[in-house]
Amino acid sequence: MIAVTTYYTTCFGELWEKSFSDLIREALEGILAQSKLDKKEISAIFFGNMLGGIVENNLHTGANIAEILDLHIPIFRTEAACASGGVAFHLGYQYLQSNPGKTIIVIGAEKMNDASPEKITTALSSAASQEEQEVGLTFPGLYGMLAQYYLHTYHYTEKHLAAIPVKNHYHATLNEKAHFKRAITIEQVLASPYVATPLKVLDSSPISDGAAAVILTNDPKVIKKARAYASILASEVATDSISLMNRKRLDTLEATTVASGKAFAHARLKPQAIQIAELHDCFSIAEILAMEDIGFWKKGSGGRRATEFSTQFGSGGPLITNTSGGLKAAGHPVGATGIKQIGEVYLQLTQQAGKRQVKSAQYGLAHNVGGSGGTAVISVLGV
Amino acid sequence: MIAVTTYYTTCFGELWEKSFSDLIREALEGILAQSKLDKKEISAIFFGNMLGGIVENNLHTGANIAEILDLHIPIFRTEAACASGGVAFHLGYQYLQSNPGKTIIVIGAEKMNDASPEKITTALSSAASQEEQEVGLTFPGLYGMLAQYYLHTYHYTEKHLAAIPVKNHYHATLNEKAHFKRAITIEQVLASPYVATPLKVLDSSPISDGAAAVILTNDPKVIKKARAYASILASEVATDSISLMNRKRLDTLEATTVASGKAFAHARLKPQAIQIAELHDCFSIAEILAMEDIGFWKKGSGGRRATEFSTQFGSGGPLITNTSGGLKAAGHPVGATGIKQIGEVYLQLTQQAGKRQVKSAQYGLAHNVGGSGGTAVISVLGV
Repeated sequence: MIAVTTYYTTCFGELWEKSFSDLIREALEGILAQSKLDKKEISAIFFGNMLGGIVENNLHTGANIAEILDLHIPIFRTEAACASGGVAFHLGYQYLQSNPGKTIIVIGAEKMNDASPEKITTALSSAASQEEQEVGLTFPGLYGMLAQYYLHTYHYTEKHLAAIPVKNHYHATLNEKAHFKRAITIEQVLASPYVATPLKVLDSSPISDGAAAVILTNDPKVIKKARAYASILASEVATDSISLMNRKRLDTLEATTVASGKAFAHARLKPQAIQIAELHDCFSIAEILAMEDIGFWKKGSGGRRATEFSTQFGSGGPLITNTSGGLKAAGHPVGATGIKQIGEVYLQLTQQAGKRQVKSAQYGLAHNVGGSGGTAVISVLGV
Repeated sequence: MIAVTTYYTTCFGELWEKSFSDLIREALEGILAQSKLDKKEISAIFFGNMLGGIVENNLHTGANIAEILDLHIPIFRTEAACASGGVAFHLGYQYLQSNPGKTIIVIGAEKMNDASPEKITTALSSAASQEEQEVGLTFPGLYGMLAQYYLHTYHYTEKHLAAIPVKNHYHATLNEKAHFKRAITIEQVLASPYVATPLKVLDSSPISDGAAAVILTNDPKVIKKARAYASILASEVATDSISLMNRKRLDTLEATTVASGKAFAHARLKPQAIQIAELHDCFSIAEILAMEDIGFWKKGSGGRRATEFSTQFGSGGPLITNTSGGLKAAGHPVGATGIKQIGEVYLQLTQQAGKRQVKSAQYGLAHNVGGSGGTAVISVLGV
């Protein structure tokens, strides 16, 4: 068994007083303190980060972490745009499959608010193809096109999209680490200014700073010592054309479909078995596509289903999504997001989610996407 | 057994007519054509690149590769400064350890010459700590300090350093893919202008464009079909403080010592068993330190030993190093370097090295370093 035994996250938000390095250090010290592990028990570290190079000329972060911990262990930085954290988790899981009796840290971090809005917008479009960048397609622009296509094809309106951030903001009011701890209404979403039609400010995840870490282990002694653990039943990565123009369909992210199909097969579960999911809601349309692509909702039904609010905490629905607040309201410090998703699923499955604790969830899923769907990671945990 | 069965590299050099994407495509198409594998036989791809984000706002290259190949397989980008390629190889090797019967591509690429000299100098210093960057320590500056310390401590002169590039340039005259296919003399090295005292232009590896790829497999059918293969006996990664000021010693790269110690233990070999090595000679001092840190030469003897030229092709010495020409003369397209090293060892061990073929080598080693020693990868291959 490979288990998640501990989770630590910094607050997410505009953390003006903390540097990239401060965030990494806080997450490392936090996860070690919380797990009561000595740093010498750690065999390797996987680190997810997207923008350190572009935003502050900071690469080779593995050696940065080695300096912070004063260790010589292997440390690996992975990057897959906004899926950097999820990919780091996946590779850590792979690593343990061939290294019995080991304990590792998987950490993700991003420092975004020190860059100007222009710089961060350009930096984020590094996740898109060179052609898309050249024609001026920003990240919201790409998801705006996906949203336009979806609303047109399945006859929905912007009001259907707005249900997603309303739910996720409500969840964030129950998460003290979230970027936006306030509820919003459908009317507020609809009244907020457009970013890329039909997507508005309140359909869009924010520019956040933060870091998050989990302990993964297959060492029976470490598992036994842990206060609570969840086991990893599957983790799969799939890719797709980086450019939207080379995709076969625009009402689905095929990378999500492929990764979730493989993950369910590996875990020997059906989508209906999942009670908790953290989904990649960088924009409201993204959560609707995710619900359909993973198989929770029928293709094309997502607009209607979203407005039923059956995935909201307290609704009594069979599947509650983005209890952390999602990328939209918990915040989206890119490299940290995929780790926070795993951490939230771990908290829920081990009854440590406090005010937002969903009752007796046995299986949880995390879904992390890079760019406009060029990479997707699906991980399934169980207790 | 996990084997290297095929190697393809583009020419290394100032490739003005080729984009980053062109180089990746050439290496992918080249490795598939040469291996006679169908792309559908590939289960995963590991990609090493350092500077795509900073230099041309190009991240999420995994999805770029997915688009080129029209595949949905997992593709992982890794970055560890100049060790990005070596780390990609290491993670690919790890991946196969837990995935039997699979075949993967490990590829590295870098496009450096499109950036201005100022931009590329700043970009490369992203491998150093923020403090080192702030005080103006460039990459040659860091290695210049290591060289000063070494020459002073062990009483050598710049002439001793100069032997390294003279040997490596000679080797590059025998490698049609090399950046500099011309021989140089000790006098020419000493007469070349200083970059960072005591290092001169001809002590320093160049700014190169290029891409390289290898096929790794543990599928017996693919191994059987291969024209020639070498098996991977060990691959180890170690890290160290990113800043020189936090290192315990300056006459050694401890990451190299730790990684090579673990690799020899895992391969059950002693350094004396190795007949072929590709070493990370980003600057002449780096090859001398590597020879000592790996255990080929006694600590402090490297200056003298270098001037004996016993590691030069044709010398009859028991260990020949950097037959490709090394980073210095074959060129140093950063992400591609670690893959080219593996490829050169593979060519030598399988008698495919043409004019520079070393006789009957059974064991070979590749040594790839990130930054000023914050990361080191040691891989051992055998036939």
